Amino acid sequence: MTPQSGHVRQAASEHTGEGRRDRTRATNLPALMSLTVVGSIAFDSVKTPFGERDRMLGGAAVHFSLAASFFTEVRPVGPVGEDFGAEQFAVLEGRGVLTEDIERVPGGESFFWRGRYEYDLNVAHTEDTQLGVFGEFVPKLSAAAEGAETLFLANIQPDLQRQVRAQCGSARFSALDSMNLWIDTAKESLLAVIAEVDCVIVNDAEVRQLTGESNLARAARAVMARGPRAVVAKQGEYGAALFTEASFFALPGYPLEDVRDPTGAGDSFAGGFLGYLDSHEGELDEAALRRAMGYGTVLASFNVEEFGTERVATLTREEIDARFADLHAMTRFEPLPAAAE
Amino acid sequence: MTPQSGHVRQAASEHTGEGRRDRTRATNLPALMSLTVVGSIAFDSVKTPFGERDRMLGGAAVHFSLAASFFTEVRPVGPVGEDFGAEQFAVLEGRGVLTEDIERVPGGESFFWRGRYEYDLNVAHTEDTQLGVFGEFVPKLSAAAEGAETLFLANIQPDLQRQVRAQCGSARFSALDSMNLWIDTAKESLLAVIAEVDCVIVNDAEVRQLTGESNLARAARAVMARGPRAVVAKQGEYGAALFTEASFFALPGYPLEDVRDPTGAGDSFAGGFLGYLDSHEGELDEAALRRAMGYGTVLASFNVEEFGTERVATLTREEIDARFADLHAMTRFEPLPAAAE
Repeated sequence: MTPQSGHVRQAASEHTGEGRRDRTRATNLPALMSLTVVGSIAFDSVKTPFGERDRMLGGAAVHFSLAASFFTEVRPVGPVGEDFGAEQFAVLEGRGVLTEDIERVPGGESFFWRGRYEYDLNVAHTEDTQLGVFGEFVPKLSAAAEGAETLFLANIQPDLQRQVRAQCGSARFSALDSMNLWIDTAKESLLAVIAEVDCVIVNDAEVRQLTGESNLARAARAVMARGPRAVVAKQGEYGAALFTEASFFALPGYPLEDVRDPTGAGDSFAGGFLGYLDSHEGELDEAALRRAMGYGTVLASFNVEEFGTERVATLTREEIDARFADLHAMTRFEPLPAAAE
Repeated sequence: MTPQSGHVRQAASEHTGEGRRDRTRATNLPALMSLTVVGSIAFDSVKTPFGERDRMLGGAAVHFSLAASFFTEVRPVGPVGEDFGAEQFAVLEGRGVLTEDIERVPGGESFFWRGRYEYDLNVAHTEDTQLGVFGEFVPKLSAAAEGAETLFLANIQPDLQRQVRAQCGSARFSALDSMNLWIDTAKESLLAVIAEVDCVIVNDAEVRQLTGESNLARAARAVMARGPRAVVAKQGEYGAALFTEASFFALPGYPLEDVRDPTGAGDSFAGGFLGYLDSHEGELDEAALRRAMGYGTVLASFNVEEFGTERVATLTREEIDARFADLHAMTRFEPLPAAAE
């Protein structure tokens, strides 16, 4: 641990304290569960056909943490600059997110992304990316973060993912995200960390690109052959598919008539998915993984209804459970065979 | 009816006769149901990364009819040329398809399509289209075809669809397919026939293009506002979504590790969907429509496992029901809320 990171943890922890612990008791979250996520904590400037926002709170670890916060205690790990202050911490802590492992780097600037979406919202056009403090990031986890029962390695350089995976040796369930950039530039490192996680959660195009196999079922099997017991292929508005050794499961995206900003949908999915699994006290069997797919789908759907973290800031667990029940009803059919009628 | 079409029906009916009626009795198909489909009856030359075939039996009405034949009696309506002979009729009649309304035009050539698929199989590249006898097609339905309880207007010029729709006045349920070409060139005619059917079954991109609405849920609602009570948005390998006034339902594509030829998948889906509905003696309610989605998905999945009609030629109802049960299991999750655990 460098001197400044110690200082930073001190600074960050000023934003947490009693308020969080009170909330934890009040919502009866399971006492022994905890979820660590490493990934970007950022400012996003986003323009869609339905509006725009400048420098709003964003980043994979932020969207993930806010989604997971409805299920468990979550600790995001990642660096921020001096531009990241009380307002941003308040959003996270307002949802009970534990911010001690957010490293505030003196003199640094936070990761920044600027993008825009076309009318169909399916493709983001990146207009600017500033790594800022993320360019020098060396993950340093607190003992509490290292002791997490569940771990998510959001989309960062695969060697950093490996470092964090190695530090979290006691995780019951671990998962990672990645992207085409790392498949192109750091494939061996990515394959090495894939071998060390339980689940890969990536876009379906990335499952194909990673394996050089255009058939998604074959591609998912090729990923599982390297170690993971599950592959989740995110399919944007079409939903997500879960491949395990013995089974296949898929859910459509929750149908929405108003989508304002798709940024963070995938990370919100992962947050709902892993947040639920972390809160699940029983075996992480197929039934649990399928319910986790449902919660991931629901959290992603809320995320895209407003810009950035705006919708999640007002979201309640009751709304989540109601939409989860809707999703169940929307995917149910009775298998009465025609011949029997 | 023109003299030659009478002659043609005579010729075509030589291929039917006792064999079909015996089969119908043997499989206990419901006696009063019948399904008419108007659309292309064609030769297809297809090349995919997994092989190629020259001038195999194809066309929307053929793929539809073969899929529907597992559920009900189906009558394809459409013209063929003198190149369409005993071998082609045998494929249809081997599945009990009623061929009396296939109009064999003396001196004519059948509709011909040549296409190829890239490695990812999601996009067909058309290399040649010869309308042949389809260029002069005027639909002339037998009394039996006109009396159908269920009607499918496959993807043909919308004015022809309207003519057929008008002739089948007693249909309990009618549906149509269309394509970008007709939205671009005959949109008013297409909207007119859409107003006269119960269900629109098109690709999701076409739902959007038809309505100028990029949000699929809104686009589907805009289509229903013109008359249909249901919209099925086909989504290729991602499956299909069913929109009704009160509900949303979606199924993933059945996961296959071997897809050889996607040609006809959408028409096979429609054949399974409408074939099941035609065989369903009860009300065509939401539960029936959802089961129909399942059968459509299953028939489409079998179709793409081999080239052209090869897989359907050996398919059995038992295989269909087994895959339908698989699909049900693959889309099922238990809604036990996390909070209750």
